[in-house]
Amino acid sequence: MRSVEWVDGKLQLIDQRVLPQEFRLVTYDNYRDVADAIYTMVVRGAPAIGATAAFGMVLAALEGAARQQVLPTLETAAATLCAARPTAVNLSWAVARLLGRARLEADPMAIPQALLAEAQALADEDVEINKRLGEFGASLVRNGDTILHHCNTGALATVDYGTALGVIRTAHEQGKHIHVLVDETRPRLQGARLTAWELTQLGIPFTLIADNAAGHFMRTGQVDLVMVGADRVAANGDVANKIGTYKLAVVAQANGIPFYPCVPTSTVDLSLPSGDDIPIEERPADEVLGISYQGQTIAPEGTHVANPAFDVTPRQYISGIVTERGIAYPPFDLALARLAGDSHAAASTD
Amino acid sequence: MRSVEWVDGKLQLIDQRVLPQEFRLVTYDNYRDVADAIYTMVVRGAPAIGATAAFGMVLAALEGAARQQVLPTLETAAATLCAARPTAVNLSWAVARLLGRARLEADPMAIPQALLAEAQALADEDVEINKRLGEFGASLVRNGDTILHHCNTGALATVDYGTALGVIRTAHEQGKHIHVLVDETRPRLQGARLTAWELTQLGIPFTLIADNAAGHFMRTGQVDLVMVGADRVAANGDVANKIGTYKLAVVAQANGIPFYPCVPTSTVDLSLPSGDDIPIEERPADEVLGISYQGQTIAPEGTHVANPAFDVTPRQYISGIVTERGIAYPPFDLALARLAGDSHAAASTD
Repeated sequence: MRSVEWVDGKLQLIDQRVLPQEFRLVTYDNYRDVADAIYTMVVRGAPAIGATAAFGMVLAALEGAARQQVLPTLETAAATLCAARPTAVNLSWAVARLLGRARLEADPMAIPQALLAEAQALADEDVEINKRLGEFGASLVRNGDTILHHCNTGALATVDYGTALGVIRTAHEQGKHIHVLVDETRPRLQGARLTAWELTQLGIPFTLIADNAAGHFMRTGQVDLVMVGADRVAANGDVANKIGTYKLAVVAQANGIPFYPCVPTSTVDLSLPSGDDIPIEERPADEVLGISYQGQTIAPEGTHVANPAFDVTPRQYISGIVTERGIAYPPFDLALARLAGDSHAAASTD
Repeated sequence: MRSVEWVDGKLQLIDQRVLPQEFRLVTYDNYRDVADAIYTMVVRGAPAIGATAAFGMVLAALEGAARQQVLPTLETAAATLCAARPTAVNLSWAVARLLGRARLEADPMAIPQALLAEAQALADEDVEINKRLGEFGASLVRNGDTILHHCNTGALATVDYGTALGVIRTAHEQGKHIHVLVDETRPRLQGARLTAWELTQLGIPFTLIADNAAGHFMRTGQVDLVMVGADRVAANGDVANKIGTYKLAVVAQANGIPFYPCVPTSTVDLSLPSGDDIPIEERPADEVLGISYQGQTIAPEGTHVANPAFDVTPRQYISGIVTERGIAYPPFDLALARLAGDSHAAASTD
């Protein structure tokens, strides 16, 4: 089963808010609910929300066809879906790809079927891309390595297989004995809830730690490499990823530990010169305040909270960027232009 | 009211496990329960557990006097209290001071009264020390500064007033407009629960953040200085403090932000050459697993957890160490020997 899948004329998602306590499938039959599912993080992970938005566009095309207004409905849906989350470029990339495909059709009533085929292709490609990325990334992993991992980048964060966690999975399938240090990843605890669940299912040994402990394990020689995903990679190699990634990269470098973001080339945004141009989403205070500790809520009433969902890691802290087309090494601007140069162009004309 | 106080022949503590939802006072009439209160973190913070252990020794003296076995009981109590938490040196420092005082008494039956006076003096000194430390530290704070703070170092972490938070309080009382960025401080959330509560009571503006967000605020120019406490400072200036401190120091340096541990000289352990010699306490997995997120427990059943309670920040990341006798600057070995050279010696002979 895929995290994002078209089933019986509807979009089916695994509800990632209730894992690991409950495995719940939810289905969507209109794009507005899909946008809400992306915002409320029923589905999360840059590649997964890209595929989700693609199927959201299919639902919009079906709705538009029923009202004889396919393209206007698609344009409205595109704006709604892209507004759901601003940081991951895969969302707007997928929406642009579907909108571009729709505009190639002379007959508006043929658009829904064409978009379904396009969204299916995008989803299938995502799985294949992750497996190729996994092969490239696994070449960096040695037998016996301990890999520090932040957030969730597994099957749940993609259509299937995963990016950084896909690399870990490939290394494990190659028979390498590896251990994963899993950052719990406050505020939403994707590491504790989702990565720990995926690694348990895959039988890959891991240890869960509070995010605060990652530096201690790096400084005391207990981490061999750091592997993360990314939500957007700028043309110069700066990387936006889940909040907390930046500090891992800085501390990794201070300890001589390689740091590798693992991304499909659809996450590379060559239109942005640097990470300074990447919009950083501010999420609700409740994500920070909404945990309880040993039965009690935390923080006094009225506490002011800042909750940026992502941070930017400048390229000087990055050892290499693993993609499905190979590993980009510094100078990143040249390497990324070569690896990802036709990725977005293809998306807008395909 | 003090966090640690002798009331009606018993030791009274503020139960820091239930704040901020409940303000509960608990009293102790034997040293074994005091050791348990230290281990279970009814009371925490290096200076506060030092004072708590001192009063625990008073209770042991009273118990020993009732059985005509004062010194043997004190020796057993000293071992029990020191074993409660290994990292903060203030605990063994206070216990050694009280034991040294007891050994000066010719009449064993005079020991309980002598130790009560000694523990009271130690507690009074702690408050005075923090106020002097606050004055020195506040000289580093400019009007308009935003100060990043980790864990809790306020009145609750000491007998009263606080160390790093005492500096912040002094700067505020001096009329400086400051803002505090409060790390929530997983796993036990001392920042969200205790520091947010203290700052609310003091009327000092603050914003609560997930620990993962601290790097983002430093990189984007929103932090002017970092102030933390410490549990033990080695002779060379390496500092053990709450897990997560090390990464703050590394990221602060990468961004040119000064990083200051604020400690009484009783936290300086000149007997340890470097931070490599400081024992790091491993706490129960339940501290990591024992939160629930939006009503659900986190992590799959059987998840393996590592939970080091402290980390070591090497001296090269430290701008200065604020004490009640002045600010130590590099080379720290010389500065600390000068400032703290007679502190432990005094404790063992006073």
